[in-house]
Amino acid sequence: MEQVMGGVTAAKGFMAAAAAAGIKYTDRTDMAMIYSTVPCVAAGTFTTNVVQAAPVKWDKKMVSNSEFAQAVVVNSGIANACTGEEGDAYCSRTAKKTAEVLKIPEDVVLVASTGVIGMQLPIEKICSGVEVLAEGLSDTKEAGNAAARAIMTTDTHEKEAAAVFTAGGRTVTIGGMCKGSGMIHPNMCTMLSFLTTDLAISKELLQEALREDIMDTYNMVSVDGDTSTNDTVLLLANGLAGNPVITEKNEDYRAFVEALRYVNTTLAKQMAGDGEGATALFEVSVTGAACKEDARTLSKAVITSNLTKAAIYGHDANWGRILCAIGYSGVSFDPDRVDLCFESAAGRIQIMRDGTALPYSEEEATKILSEPYVRAEIDIKSGDFEATAWGCDLTYDYVKINADYRS
Amino acid sequence: MEQVMGGVTAAKGFMAAAAAAGIKYTDRTDMAMIYSTVPCVAAGTFTTNVVQAAPVKWDKKMVSNSEFAQAVVVNSGIANACTGEEGDAYCSRTAKKTAEVLKIPEDVVLVASTGVIGMQLPIEKICSGVEVLAEGLSDTKEAGNAAARAIMTTDTHEKEAAAVFTAGGRTVTIGGMCKGSGMIHPNMCTMLSFLTTDLAISKELLQEALREDIMDTYNMVSVDGDTSTNDTVLLLANGLAGNPVITEKNEDYRAFVEALRYVNTTLAKQMAGDGEGATALFEVSVTGAACKEDARTLSKAVITSNLTKAAIYGHDANWGRILCAIGYSGVSFDPDRVDLCFESAAGRIQIMRDGTALPYSEEEATKILSEPYVRAEIDIKSGDFEATAWGCDLTYDYVKINADYRS
Repeated sequence: MEQVMGGVTAAKGFMAAAAAAGIKYTDRTDMAMIYSTVPCVAAGTFTTNVVQAAPVKWDKKMVSNSEFAQAVVVNSGIANACTGEEGDAYCSRTAKKTAEVLKIPEDVVLVASTGVIGMQLPIEKICSGVEVLAEGLSDTKEAGNAAARAIMTTDTHEKEAAAVFTAGGRTVTIGGMCKGSGMIHPNMCTMLSFLTTDLAISKELLQEALREDIMDTYNMVSVDGDTSTNDTVLLLANGLAGNPVITEKNEDYRAFVEALRYVNTTLAKQMAGDGEGATALFEVSVTGAACKEDARTLSKAVITSNLTKAAIYGHDANWGRILCAIGYSGVSFDPDRVDLCFESAAGRIQIMRDGTALPYSEEEATKILSEPYVRAEIDIKSGDFEATAWGCDLTYDYVKINADYRS
Repeated sequence: MEQVMGGVTAAKGFMAAAAAAGIKYTDRTDMAMIYSTVPCVAAGTFTTNVVQAAPVKWDKKMVSNSEFAQAVVVNSGIANACTGEEGDAYCSRTAKKTAEVLKIPEDVVLVASTGVIGMQLPIEKICSGVEVLAEGLSDTKEAGNAAARAIMTTDTHEKEAAAVFTAGGRTVTIGGMCKGSGMIHPNMCTMLSFLTTDLAISKELLQEALREDIMDTYNMVSVDGDTSTNDTVLLLANGLAGNPVITEKNEDYRAFVEALRYVNTTLAKQMAGDGEGATALFEVSVTGAACKEDARTLSKAVITSNLTKAAIYGHDANWGRILCAIGYSGVSFDPDRVDLCFESAAGRIQIMRDGTALPYSEEEATKILSEPYVRAEIDIKSGDFEATAWGCDLTYDYVKINADYRS
């Protein structure tokens, strides 16, 4: 596997476009389209929130019932959540309009929305936007990047990743883009992520690969503990790489899984680091857990602790809060065996060994914690399992952004 | 039952004192003592955090093994958590010193600490403080109030409540004080609370009354989702009211339970409203739940949602975030049946009926949400159970306090 530049247009046969439809923002693009020149098999994972946005319900139905998918239309600004039957009808109208202009069936069109909950979409603007998007489709890197920018809400930068790998002697590409900054919490999947690959693979294995991957990528990200009504990850595979169709978990499948993991981990970390108001990406690895689920729970408990997040913002090696967070996580362990280290580009420092604080330099710890990418390693010495979670610090700007978001 | 002024010295035979021992703060009192002139039966509930502070371990053992309790010694500034065997020994030394100066057995002394995790107590200062406290014991209202002030950390004011009721023809008093501002989350009990009553009651029923009560009082409070290593609620009953000893769940028991509920609810609300950096007490009542546990889970999901808390700070009727929070709570319900109202001293407004937003005045909603005590009522129309939870808004000052707490 090799990392490459690019996003949703990196793989063969995928095009993208962005448009300024004036849905809520007036000074930027707010719609994006992804289109494959040939039909794709599609996989999706969606929010576990009981309250599900209209596009989530639409996509769940399409991914499960349609044999193929060929286009995705996304808007930012309004989430089309808590919008009743009118909201459902707008998904259908968006898909219908897209089908018309792209001359494809309606049931191969997926939709996604992100933004304010409870407002209705201005459907005429959406339909005009779809026309502009269809006109502007391009397979360039720039078009993929423009799409990644159009789907942002409070994100401060676009998020893309791509990789190539070999399957059946053919070079296969997988690329993706995602957005997400607030209302992000590890539960099923996180905000909007769109992945495209020219791999040839069965729909069943595509879905399985995605479902397994998100457990250790998007589901391990938390900005604020709030699981959105709109979380969606879509993965489209159009087969244009020309590899023999993957229908079993062979070597090609494993190469794909590795590339998928790289792309999703990269996107997940970009989301965590761009959490609302964040000044630092906070990575927490737990090793020595008795099972995988314990490792996940422990690492997530630390990245979701408001007190720990505020300490990271303050560049304060407040290990007591970390020990407290793993203590209330619900996982049983022996506090007297815990080791804790902090690490960043500025160095590495061990803070605790066997549950007891070591005489470390506060000055050195503060230096390490002042970097934009801070890592904590926790070893609970109870087994062989490990997990990594990604979050960010809790800052004044997080409060500012969310006290004002609707106004 | 009747509300009265006062705190831990309200009930007959209880004395209190405060002292400035210089443990961490140098400009205020930081130790408190509660003493009963006669032995009490004692009940206690403690943190569920796997990491438990030394005084928590001490009190758990004493409450369960000792027939009586007669004194409680509390310090603020240092939590005596994650302090190993040295920390355990300091609890024992504090109890021993207290037993000496008060001429009572060592095993009737309870201890509690709150403050920074990981530092060792300056035990000589603690022992000197115990001497000062024993000298200063008084049964006045002022002494109770001084004790309530001495146990504060980032609290901005002391928290006391008291009530009288009748049992077996005698007037019985119950009073209490608590502290808690950060690292507060509904799980077992919340930070330090000390309750005293002159009721005569069996130890078993005292424990049962407390255990049941905290489920709907302290456990329904959250400031920041972090469950402390030190959470402790102690309830001492010395029998001086002279009522026939309560040994069954009769009318007297029910009168006591009602008064206990009043005192603990009042203290719990004071804690929530004084959450770190808070500008508003945020009360959330859920009605129409299929079972009590669902009602608790739903109301707690709302008060712990950072996004909702930030919206309350911004006086923003962002009902989408509330619907989102109950949606990810894990409780199953029909989003299309949800009603939502906001209420405060400035009025009452219905925002949502049957899952759909009503055309309400944003201006009026903002006025209602600008009060220091804001209430949300959510009816999910799935049954007859209800619960209320208390939290606060998320503010710049919360971040400021916690980014700097150790320095």
